[in-house]
Amino acid sequence: MTTAPREADAITAPVRDAMIRALELARRGPRHGVNPQVGCVLLSPEGDVLAEGWHEGAGTPHAEVAALRALVRPELARGATAVVSLEPCNHHGRTGPCSVALIEAGVSRVVYAVPDPGVRSGGGGERMREAGLDVQQGLLAHEAAETIRPWLTAMRLGRPFVTVKWASSLDGRAAAADGSSRWITGAQARADVHRRRADADAILVGTGTLLADDPELTARGDDGLLPHQPAPVVVGRRAVPATARVHAHPLPLRTFDGLDLHAMLRELFDEEVRSVLVEGGPTLASAFLAAGLADELLVYLAPTLIGGPMTAVGDLGVESIGEQRRLVFTDLRRLGDDVLLVARPDASAPTKE
Amino acid sequence: MTTAPREADAITAPVRDAMIRALELARRGPRHGVNPQVGCVLLSPEGDVLAEGWHEGAGTPHAEVAALRALVRPELARGATAVVSLEPCNHHGRTGPCSVALIEAGVSRVVYAVPDPGVRSGGGGERMREAGLDVQQGLLAHEAAETIRPWLTAMRLGRPFVTVKWASSLDGRAAAADGSSRWITGAQARADVHRRRADADAILVGTGTLLADDPELTARGDDGLLPHQPAPVVVGRRAVPATARVHAHPLPLRTFDGLDLHAMLRELFDEEVRSVLVEGGPTLASAFLAAGLADELLVYLAPTLIGGPMTAVGDLGVESIGEQRRLVFTDLRRLGDDVLLVARPDASAPTKE
Ligand SMILES: NC(=O)c1ccc[n+]([C@@H]2O[C@H](COP(=O)([O-])OP(=O)(O)OC[C@H]3O[C@@H](n4cnc5c(N)ncnc54)[C@H](OP(=O)(O)O)[C@@H]3O)[C@@H](O)[C@H]2O)c1
Ligand SMILES: NC(=O)c1ccc[n+]([C@@H]2O[C@H](COP(=O)([O-])OP(=O)(O)OC[C@H]3O[C@@H](n4cnc5c(N)ncnc54)[C@H](OP(=O)(O)O)[C@@H]3O)[C@@H](O)[C@H]2O)c1
Repeated sequence: MTTAPREADAITAPVRDAMIRALELARRGPRHGVNPQVGCVLLSPEGDVLAEGWHEGAGTPHAEVAALRALVRPELARGATAVVSLEPCNHHGRTGPCSVALIEAGVSRVVYAVPDPGVRSGGGGERMREAGLDVQQGLLAHEAAETIRPWLTAMRLGRPFVTVKWASSLDGRAAAADGSSRWITGAQARADVHRRRADADAILVGTGTLLADDPELTARGDDGLLPHQPAPVVVGRRAVPATARVHAHPLPLRTFDGLDLHAMLRELFDEEVRSVLVEGGPTLASAFLAAGLADELLVYLAPTLIGGPMTAVGDLGVESIGEQRRLVFTDLRRLGDDVLLVARPDASAPTKE
Repeated sequence: MTTAPREADAITAPVRDAMIRALELARRGPRHGVNPQVGCVLLSPEGDVLAEGWHEGAGTPHAEVAALRALVRPELARGATAVVSLEPCNHHGRTGPCSVALIEAGVSRVVYAVPDPGVRSGGGGERMREAGLDVQQGLLAHEAAETIRPWLTAMRLGRPFVTVKWASSLDGRAAAADGSSRWITGAQARADVHRRRADADAILVGTGTLLADDPELTARGDDGLLPHQPAPVVVGRRAVPATARVHAHPLPLRTFDGLDLHAMLRELFDEEVRSVLVEGGPTLASAFLAAGLADELLVYLAPTLIGGPMTAVGDLGVESIGEQRRLVFTDLRRLGDDVLLVARPDASAPTKE
């Protein structure tokens, strides 16, 4: 049996290289926001690169349109191949559907990595196929899906991608017995948190943290506020004091009572929030973890021991070792004196033998 | 001002290379046992290597004697330089003093890295100097001291070097709520623990762990028992059941009531124990940590969340964040799905700004 699927036959080296490049271009766009990071490369029938484009954020052209506009002459699109990291969209958002733009430009072949799971935006591949274009899906799909995992997860689940972050001592404490927690980690770890805040659409803390630490909930660098700020969200029934520093945040404060985390996330999704960074404290973080609502964990471990009652994670309802919540470590790095461990739920392996 | 100290002038490249080699040789010896790992290289006056030696464990020749015996002809020692990773010993142990052996062999110069802190064994450098030899100390002292840190610490403090090990979930739990803890970490992490057991003179557990897990307290590899076994020690007032598996250990069981950890360690030191591996459980480990009796920490972190009451470390008496016990991470590595963090007390920095 030597009959390989037709698609596999057609992927030549220039097309593959173009997809690698499209993924690089995608990463130039912002991680935050309602749209995913997408890159597009237009190839001539001979496999030469004609133009490139990527999406620079809501309100700007999608990657495909940006690439079409980057052509020296529009006619070059005729008979060209568009290599895109995500299925071209099919809906009229702030811009027209990319599927239609590619059809109208005269592109004859489209190769994309991952399908668009969006209810309204999906279906671009089918539309182009119906218009007679040669459409192929799946090239470097894994790499492309990793690049936009937060956005894909949000679209699939209809709620923002949730990252739960905590900083703890090596023995898992987020504060000393009296509640003091500044500082457990060092300057480099804190700078890393600020960079990740700037990648998120919203940052969430519980009222306990708000009242204890009076945080600004902004993303800051050495020169003050970073260009993108996450929306500040405080969760819990207690009131936010009028004097709280979060009121000075450039974006308006959003509050939720926190009794129904699922409903809160749906509401944030409807407000175009695609990623939230849950920065604690322990009670709120544990509520997210216990509800199975953490898509990624960022654990900053400081070389220190604290002991005592202030664990970074409280009760998760795990009675016996067979019920432990298995994760996989996806990254591990030193940040100054500290260590960052990145993990995500392990879909495959429930328990170790 | 260009007057460098005389010693510094005299360290030529062959002498330096010989010290690097002596450290390599030292590491061939066992880590466990009453004697340190030592290596020795004998150089001709021209800087050529005449012979090498290292210490292979209690009852075998010291490195210097091993090197002298490795000479093609004993007369080659006359006028030679002995490069040794530790100050040649000055006492009659199971072998004669190395300082005397070097003097009698006719060696004219001795370069060693670290001084011997032993009350009885130290002073070899002085004795050789009095005998007219050119004696220099301090070359690659830091590297040499790191190599035999457990032994040096034990000799300096008059108690065994204490390594506290635990395996925990990412959130710092050593067991689920019902006490079940097999398995949190995977096979590679457990194999690493067994290799480290084989490097220790003794392995300690509390009665809680003994009664809960009925551990064998042996060092095992794929083919059964490893060549060196740590002595099993159980700490606590409760009795060890007659049926406990630890009774099958090749070495006799030692028990202590655990009320005075300092006294216990002194007693073990007097019994020639130079390193102990404290394998828990949480109560015993926390007692060692709270007493400031941990020279090294091995923390095996599994990608899993457990939550609940069974923290790997209990109370350490830290009330406020300023009292946290600062450490430094000295190693960080993946072991299969798990991560090993190695840390030691940070003598320099009490608290982060
Ligand atoms: N090391 C770190 O990474 C870190 C990060 C943040 C905070 N901290 C420390 O953590 C301490 C504060 O801890 P905390 O646990 O009180 O803070 P928290 O988690 O910020 O706040 C707890 C409060 O969150 C509200 N909440 C919202 N949704 C909830 C839900 N689904 N379930 C339960 N509660 C929900 C409740 O407020 P209501 O009672 O108002 O309804 C609850 O009392 C401070 O010492 C702070 O310094 C450490
Ligand atoms: N994940 C891991 O790395 C790991 C490792 C080991 C055990 N475990 C788990 O830990 C659990 C057992 O926990 P545990 O805390 O009861 O075990 P433990 O620390 O082994 O035993 C506690 C007992 O140690 C004795 N002890 C000795 N010296 C002491 C001192 N200076 N201060 C206080 N107590 C001293 C006391 O016994 P007396 O009352 O008899 O005097 C105390 O009750 C089990 O579930 C086991 O599976 C996990």
